[in-house]
Amino acid sequence: MGKGGVSVMAARDGEVNMATREGEVNMPTREGEVNMAAWLCGVNTLKLQPFKLPPVGPHDVKIRMKAVGICGSDVHYLKTLRCGDFVVKEPMVIGHECAGIVEEVGRKVKSLVVGDRVALEPGISCSHCSECKVGNYNLCPEMEFFATPPVHGALANQVVHPANLCFKLPGKVSLEEGAMCEPLSVGIHACRRVNVGVGTTVLVMGAGPIGLVTMLAARAFGASKIVIADIDPHRLSVAKKLGADGIVKVSTNIEDVDGEVSHIQKALGAGVDVSFDCVGFNKTMSTALKATRSGGKVCLVGMGHNEMTIPLTPAAAREVDIVGIFRYKNTWPLCLDLLSSGKIDVKPLITHRFGFTQSELEKAFETSAQGGDAIKVMFNL
Amino acid sequence: MGKGGVSVMAARDGEVNMATREGEVNMPTREGEVNMAAWLCGVNTLKLQPFKLPPVGPHDVKIRMKAVGICGSDVHYLKTLRCGDFVVKEPMVIGHECAGIVEEVGRKVKSLVVGDRVALEPGISCSHCSECKVGNYNLCPEMEFFATPPVHGALANQVVHPANLCFKLPGKVSLEEGAMCEPLSVGIHACRRVNVGVGTTVLVMGAGPIGLVTMLAARAFGASKIVIADIDPHRLSVAKKLGADGIVKVSTNIEDVDGEVSHIQKALGAGVDVSFDCVGFNKTMSTALKATRSGGKVCLVGMGHNEMTIPLTPAAAREVDIVGIFRYKNTWPLCLDLLSSGKIDVKPLITHRFGFTQSELEKAFETSAQGGDAIKVMFNL
Amino acid sequence: MGKGGVSVMAARDGEVNMATREGEVNMPTREGEVNMAAWLCGVNTLKLQPFKLPPVGPHDVKIRMKAVGICGSDVHYLKTLRCGDFVVKEPMVIGHECAGIVEEVGRKVKSLVVGDRVALEPGISCSHCSECKVGNYNLCPEMEFFATPPVHGALANQVVHPANLCFKLPGKVSLEEGAMCEPLSVGIHACRRVNVGVGTTVLVMGAGPIGLVTMLAARAFGASKIVIADIDPHRLSVAKKLGADGIVKVSTNIEDVDGEVSHIQKALGAGVDVSFDCVGFNKTMSTALKATRSGGKVCLVGMGHNEMTIPLTPAAAREVDIVGIFRYKNTWPLCLDLLSSGKIDVKPLITHRFGFTQSELEKAFETSAQGGDAIKVMFNL
Amino acid sequence: MGKGGVSVMAARDGEVNMATREGEVNMPTREGEVNMAAWLCGVNTLKLQPFKLPPVGPHDVKIRMKAVGICGSDVHYLKTLRCGDFVVKEPMVIGHECAGIVEEVGRKVKSLVVGDRVALEPGISCSHCSECKVGNYNLCPEMEFFATPPVHGALANQVVHPANLCFKLPGKVSLEEGAMCEPLSVGIHACRRVNVGVGTTVLVMGAGPIGLVTMLAARAFGASKIVIADIDPHRLSVAKKLGADGIVKVSTNIEDVDGEVSHIQKALGAGVDVSFDCVGFNKTMSTALKATRSGGKVCLVGMGHNEMTIPLTPAAAREVDIVGIFRYKNTWPLCLDLLSSGKIDVKPLITHRFGFTQSELEKAFETSAQGGDAIKVMFNL
Repeated sequence: MGKGGVSVMAARDGEVNMATREGEVNMPTREGEVNMAAWLCGVNTLKLQPFKLPPVGPHDVKIRMKAVGICGSDVHYLKTLRCGDFVVKEPMVIGHECAGIVEEVGRKVKSLVVGDRVALEPGISCSHCSECKVGNYNLCPEMEFFATPPVHGALANQVVHPANLCFKLPGKVSLEEGAMCEPLSVGIHACRRVNVGVGTTVLVMGAGPIGLVTMLAARAFGASKIVIADIDPHRLSVAKKLGADGIVKVSTNIEDVDGEVSHIQKALGAGVDVSFDCVGFNKTMSTALKATRSGGKVCLVGMGHNEMTIPLTPAAAREVDIVGIFRYKNTWPLCLDLLSSGKIDVKPLITHRFGFTQSELEKAFETSAQGGDAIKVMFNL
Repeated sequence: MGKGGVSVMAARDGEVNMATREGEVNMPTREGEVNMAAWLCGVNTLKLQPFKLPPVGPHDVKIRMKAVGICGSDVHYLKTLRCGDFVVKEPMVIGHECAGIVEEVGRKVKSLVVGDRVALEPGISCSHCSECKVGNYNLCPEMEFFATPPVHGALANQVVHPANLCFKLPGKVSLEEGAMCEPLSVGIHACRRVNVGVGTTVLVMGAGPIGLVTMLAARAFGASKIVIADIDPHRLSVAKKLGADGIVKVSTNIEDVDGEVSHIQKALGAGVDVSFDCVGFNKTMSTALKATRSGGKVCLVGMGHNEMTIPLTPAAAREVDIVGIFRYKNTWPLCLDLLSSGKIDVKPLITHRFGFTQSELEKAFETSAQGGDAIKVMFNL
Repeated sequence: MGKGGVSVMAARDGEVNMATREGEVNMPTREGEVNMAAWLCGVNTLKLQPFKLPPVGPHDVKIRMKAVGICGSDVHYLKTLRCGDFVVKEPMVIGHECAGIVEEVGRKVKSLVVGDRVALEPGISCSHCSECKVGNYNLCPEMEFFATPPVHGALANQVVHPANLCFKLPGKVSLEEGAMCEPLSVGIHACRRVNVGVGTTVLVMGAGPIGLVTMLAARAFGASKIVIADIDPHRLSVAKKLGADGIVKVSTNIEDVDGEVSHIQKALGAGVDVSFDCVGFNKTMSTALKATRSGGKVCLVGMGHNEMTIPLTPAAAREVDIVGIFRYKNTWPLCLDLLSSGKIDVKPLITHRFGFTQSELEKAFETSAQGGDAIKVMFNL
Repeated sequence: MGKGGVSVMAARDGEVNMATREGEVNMPTREGEVNMAAWLCGVNTLKLQPFKLPPVGPHDVKIRMKAVGICGSDVHYLKTLRCGDFVVKEPMVIGHECAGIVEEVGRKVKSLVVGDRVALEPGISCSHCSECKVGNYNLCPEMEFFATPPVHGALANQVVHPANLCFKLPGKVSLEEGAMCEPLSVGIHACRRVNVGVGTTVLVMGAGPIGLVTMLAARAFGASKIVIADIDPHRLSVAKKLGADGIVKVSTNIEDVDGEVSHIQKALGAGVDVSFDCVGFNKTMSTALKATRSGGKVCLVGMGHNEMTIPLTPAAAREVDIVGIFRYKNTWPLCLDLLSSGKIDVKPLITHRFGFTQSELEKAFETSAQGGDAIKVMFNL
């Protein structure tokens, strides 16, 4: 990672042009304070720099950020300047798992007042396209989403955001837990898409952060038995502590699928109603397809391989369906309800905390990238 | 195909042992008539031979078969003695698309009388397992299904079958149309699984018999626009005559997928809500996944490739789901309603007819296997 | 109805105060033209008066109205100044079934250009509440809906409306048919709520305008048999001409329910999967509940009685559910598709046409109120 | 209640004819033991008398009954010889909430062995009608159900029942808890029909046995907040102890509905997503309809009034649907899972226990009929 100044490294799809947003970068905020943000300026290059906020519109609020988590996609952007089809072409503020305190409210905002602690849903949908109108706003083609280029993210002292996407935290829910609503939302949306309910038996492939939140969500949705599989014994032991009924250590060797499927089924002691592949490799998906009972569902959550080679036809001939997810919709109120009632506890997932300085910034992303015992790395601003 | 006597050829998984069912083969039926059936005796070996019927149970009827169609799976069994995981290990009567006339009714049967014209649903489920109890009887692990080894099929002068699986034909529906309920059921079940309804836009990959019945079913379910794609111009012209709104000739070259996707979308003039892959090859599935709109569904109907290499992750990340089908459930009454009301006309699909003699039997299967202009080959018994 | 000047009659819930909107009434529009509208000024008092338009916002269009239909609720407001919980307290422009031609587009509008013929969806939802976000925007508590007090309606030379609620008419669809999208939407929403599909058997109670559009929608959704019941033989004969499979004349005597239920079931020749009560009286609802098969659904569309006395428990004990509707959501694109493809023909429903003068206005509402052979009364502006 | 001998009292719909089943009554069972059962012989007349068992068919088991609960419908039959449309015309063995130990297995039974502890699902459906085939076997018109005339019940030393309706108890689940699967199934089926899930807010009208099991089921299904209303403070305090988040004492005065609705909504602190009316009176249903949020559902579980006078139209106009239930389907495995895992504890509901003698029989039904602090009255045989 670049140590001093902005190192503009070439991304695979062209260069990041530092000049283009210069005007934004240098303006001090109201009352003399300079709003600092974590700018992604090139491959492996993050810089704490000033970030000019837009005006607070009538339906907006200005938030003093207090807790921002690092997501796998943030790390991916840092290393490659891209994620899926999105490519970073200009410097961009990073970060989208966040919570903070309301500092200013637009003149038409009735739902919030200054001082409210809020969790932020990162995506602003158009609200008028056919997807938005039927409630699938996560599929809105005009979505503006924190830290998805060219939209700036939220790892900053302050951000401006629509009030209706800022959800007031119940008294029992901390700001860090508020920031965790974002990854938790992925698990909740996945559970909803495959109808996890009371008595559902579940397999989770992958015990990383997303596998773990999916497991926690499935439990809260009523899953009766959950088995989680991973290649890493440490991750499995964490999963066990967090409530997995069974854990299965798997290999990276595709030859082992059949044997591992039978270990999984034995560990579950029942047919697998629903599998979540939170990794997204040929092997994990093959395992999920074979392990799931006839008439069950496999939800692809992880995004490891782009093209996959999988035994699809035999699964389809058992009416095992494959369901995809893109982000989430309408999850924040439920997240806050589950956190507040104690049905889900995300605090054990927060393993590392960092301050909001240039050196902490770099250390935090290194920690997150290395994996190891890090699950969720959190900034306290 | 063997010309005289029974040529017992070795199947890949062992030999067909002619001795094992000898007792069944030689018994004359009641009143001196010998019930003849089409026995699959080895690779490419079909023989017209006597077939002893079981007694007519209290809930059964005996049917005089009048119309039996040849299915792709029948041809597959004839050529390889297997289909999916099922292997023919002993001589087996073939055929499962059928209709006939009731000749005898069990003592507790109230729904039918001698002389009734009926279409037969081929599968007898256990009715007590958890799948049967929730209505998914097509997934019953104890299913006994015509011509799925080791269960005998229905290409015979007479068969005995449960009365509740014999559906009386309305006056306007012919026996041949009755036999067509079976392939039509596949299309109907596929349409149900992906919720085709009024206004749905549809892509069908493959204009073979199953592609065509799926197209007809989708139209009856209310699809507003249907485009069908195939490599064969003749099949496409048939599809056009049968009501496709658009046809797209495609290649077998995987490189052409992106271009063909855009032809398909242009031909449809709208986003594709639902795609049916009635072929099941890497290329057809890749095309279906890319052509379908975000939030849409792809139904895998054909069973070309077992393991598939497909761009699954980008599709999942647009919440394009993959739905499989296995046979069908609760479709006969709807088939008969649609045929009777004229909402679906399957008569143009019946392109060839044969009698029930050894030489006709061989010619019929040759015709079906060669494809060409043959869509559905039908025996008139 | 008042003949000259504005007769301000007291509504049951207070007086209509003509003074309050005076400013709005007298302003000429751009280029000297005075925009005239039909103002509901008191019980039985409609006046053609100037109507000042709001400015065309960046996402709005200005429409030159060409076809506006009269709805039962319009007549109800005229006679009582109220409908359900809504009460007219100040003069209000009436009318909400409408289509016209785009005359001006806001600067951010991309979907429409001047000259486009459009049908207008009358309700503007907030797009940010929990109902809007899950796609149930018809239940939005902040809905602003044409001619639902205090919001003005659309029976005017011009109106300003959000572009995303103005749907371009396909070439084959006339402006009058465009205006019919509104009542048709009620039928479509009703059919969606109870899952009418291919093969569904349907009972419609009431052959008025809403009963007829519900029948047409049910047919387009795939209903296999539809029986319609009414007290008026003329209405029944119209229903028959429009495609009912069976018609049943019923009485207003609650004692006749059981006999009429058996007439209905005989006319249908099958169990009733779904009943629509497009009247909403004790008797029609009792008939619907008793006629519907176990596990079926009754949709309450009409709003005759407020409190109802019905045999609810025996229906519930057969799992016959009662489903309500409030307006509609996401129906215009489907309406236009069905009208354009000819799957639904609403033209025969338009029985009377009037111009847009004070005397025509009065005659039109009298015609609609009297019923008789009037189904839909339409203004051509 | 009759004290000695069989008192044959006239039922409203004719007399109970003791002679008709005499043959059944007096036969000793295998090995000399006389199988005794509780016969309903007339109004308020129950007699312990011999009960001849049918032979154990190949798919049947013979059960030694150990725990049988008294249901409200049992008491209703005892007092009136009828329940809903069912009328007791001949002496009938009563009882349908039961569990016992397998004493003999039919020759084709593989799922059970002698000595297994099992809970019995009381209804035998035909498995071949259209309702059974789609999974709605509770609506099977040929259902044979314990103690629904003319089918005998299960309050006997021994009964013969199909093995597939006898569910093996997990080690942690007692026979009494096994018998509680039947009432619990009503609550589970109700929760399923209205999609109670994680985060659902719930109102239960009535804190009797069915109200309580519905509350327990709703909690297990993930309900976030549950308020229960009743006229009886003792019942409410029991509900509170069993986990209600809020309790509301209501009156029997219909005038109080609006005030009570606002108490309920305040107690819940949120909109009511789903209401269960476990009473079934005009007032309870009116309260449920008014209390439920727009777009919510009301499930009618109780069967107090037959004809109901309710504000249906305003509820329908808010898309509040009314959903009925009839018994249950596919609930026993889930019940046992919930009891075994401790997610539901039904033991506190069993307030009284009786032996299986004539005098205990009479006392048990008196206790159940009087209500008071009795929730579930159980026989230990």
